[in-house]
Amino acid sequence: MPPLDEFGRIRAWTEGRQSKKWMVEAGVTLGIGDDAAVVAGGTSATEWLLAMDTMVEEVHFLDATMSESDVGYKALAANISDIAAMGGTPKFALVSVSVPPAWNAERMKLLFDGLYECADKYQVAVIGGDTTSAPSHLVVAVTLMGFVEAGKAVRRDGARPGQSVFLTGPTGLSAGGLHGLLNNIGSIPARLAQAHQRPSPSVKAGRLLLETGWAASLNDVSDGVASEAWEIAEASGVRLLLKETLLPISGELASYALEHGIQPLDLVLYGGEDYVLLGTVDKQHEHSMKDRFRREGIPLFIIGEVEAGEPGVAIQSASGKVKPMDKRGYNHFSKG
Amino acid sequence: MPPLDEFGRIRAWTEGRQSKKWMVEAGVTLGIGDDAAVVAGGTSATEWLLAMDTMVEEVHFLDATMSESDVGYKALAANISDIAAMGGTPKFALVSVSVPPAWNAERMKLLFDGLYECADKYQVAVIGGDTTSAPSHLVVAVTLMGFVEAGKAVRRDGARPGQSVFLTGPTGLSAGGLHGLLNNIGSIPARLAQAHQRPSPSVKAGRLLLETGWAASLNDVSDGVASEAWEIAEASGVRLLLKETLLPISGELASYALEHGIQPLDLVLYGGEDYVLLGTVDKQHEHSMKDRFRREGIPLFIIGEVEAGEPGVAIQSASGKVKPMDKRGYNHFSKG
Repeated sequence: MPPLDEFGRIRAWTEGRQSKKWMVEAGVTLGIGDDAAVVAGGTSATEWLLAMDTMVEEVHFLDATMSESDVGYKALAANISDIAAMGGTPKFALVSVSVPPAWNAERMKLLFDGLYECADKYQVAVIGGDTTSAPSHLVVAVTLMGFVEAGKAVRRDGARPGQSVFLTGPTGLSAGGLHGLLNNIGSIPARLAQAHQRPSPSVKAGRLLLETGWAASLNDVSDGVASEAWEIAEASGVRLLLKETLLPISGELASYALEHGIQPLDLVLYGGEDYVLLGTVDKQHEHSMKDRFRREGIPLFIIGEVEAGEPGVAIQSASGKVKPMDKRGYNHFSKG
Repeated sequence: MPPLDEFGRIRAWTEGRQSKKWMVEAGVTLGIGDDAAVVAGGTSATEWLLAMDTMVEEVHFLDATMSESDVGYKALAANISDIAAMGGTPKFALVSVSVPPAWNAERMKLLFDGLYECADKYQVAVIGGDTTSAPSHLVVAVTLMGFVEAGKAVRRDGARPGQSVFLTGPTGLSAGGLHGLLNNIGSIPARLAQAHQRPSPSVKAGRLLLETGWAASLNDVSDGVASEAWEIAEASGVRLLLKETLLPISGELASYALEHGIQPLDLVLYGGEDYVLLGTVDKQHEHSMKDRFRREGIPLFIIGEVEAGEPGVAIQSASGKVKPMDKRGYNHFSKG
């Protein structure tokens, strides 16, 4: 066991990070330091959203790809993205860390620096924690509670034939950044590295989609466009047809891919952790949606349509040829 | 990565385990399978309790000490105990598993068998999950939500000089069981092995203590009596004096310890994971409390008293000699 006991460690990493006054205003009756945290019960007009997402060293990150504070930041950001994908507002987080000997107190402090930076940015109160030792590789599990108007959470099973498929930002940037970091390429565009290390969950877009009621189905792109589209297709019992010419590819990614001999489309479709939102919308709302997103400064791309048929996902190339799209998701360090 | 994708695996381990009808009645709007689970918002008369507790292979369990289903059972039971220690009722669980190659689909199914056995016993709805691969050693992190009457959660900072210290059951049984399992002793009394592998969180005792208002402070004995007493002492700013002659030692533990040359007091004070409750009560309530606990069939032992003074814990031997008690907690596989 590391020298500090469990509470000593959790205290050293969390104490005084968020003011008591702010916590009380956020609905926290009792935070870190007892058997359980206590939070306000809510009202019958709201429902609670609960997400839990875990990052494992050697599976999701390496020393070469993420700093300690990046790991903490992203562990929370990935959970915020899950709440955003339901149209909710993130609220309370609990953090469990399993700490191997290589992660000393100084490194863990940096991890929590990053986690609290993200928490403060998205107004999330960190209310609980658990820390254990581990034989090797760090594991960070985060649970996040968010709230949503009762009955309004945007699910992934609402896609219907005739709807359009949309994306709230370009994808593949995180995978591009990872490629550069793994291959020790010094000149990675900052936007790619940042997309991988400090992703921005789409809370604003999610709230807008819930409030307007425009999103019939919604997922966050944590595991790649292909995988998320498949999830919507299977949950909704429909076929999604994506159009290659409509897929947004950022300039930075395009130049980086060209320079390093990568197919950008691979990153755009199969790269994960961009944390933009993928969803479907009734055609009648498309115009108002584009207009409103432009005014709010949130990107919006229509990238395909929903068809009846065997659940699945296909992609149409510029030449009009349609081929089925693999279900496979994002695998950080695969050699395949 | 294991052959099944994340959702495939989670589905295989969780689908159909709890009926949809029961989930809806329990307040679950949307369970496993979307970005986040959705649960009822509650009322202003209740508060939510949130606990998160993690079990790590090689730190908390080995093949020799716990079966797969024991691991699943205990991972949830430990969290239920945290909710019990606040006087709450457990309600919704989320489970994150980081799965190394040695834990194949069959072993994981057994783990979830045990987890659901515990969930059903305590009426907990499993509403979310996350699964990742891992290079080695299994990690199971559980988050549990429970509810409590607003403003009533029993904290650890309410101990005051003049109160009595109580325990809702004997301790050291789990550590005794672990000793036998680790040393490959075939004749461990079933009660000791079961205390270690299938512990019983004290939900009924916790609810009774909350409803009667008798517990001024409360902890569950997850990390050993010494450690929990220290936590109450430090949180409350008081000194706890335990009396050796008042500490309950079960007959099974006493004979086992005698047979194997162990000091039972070491297990009773420094063995963890018995999940009984340790708390303090105003002397005026002691009589009614004993009476009520006897009628409910819950053990109750008064084991010491609260004094003013520098926060800490001391123990008085049968001869009247008082010595300070170490703060150290439970270390499963230490050689020290």
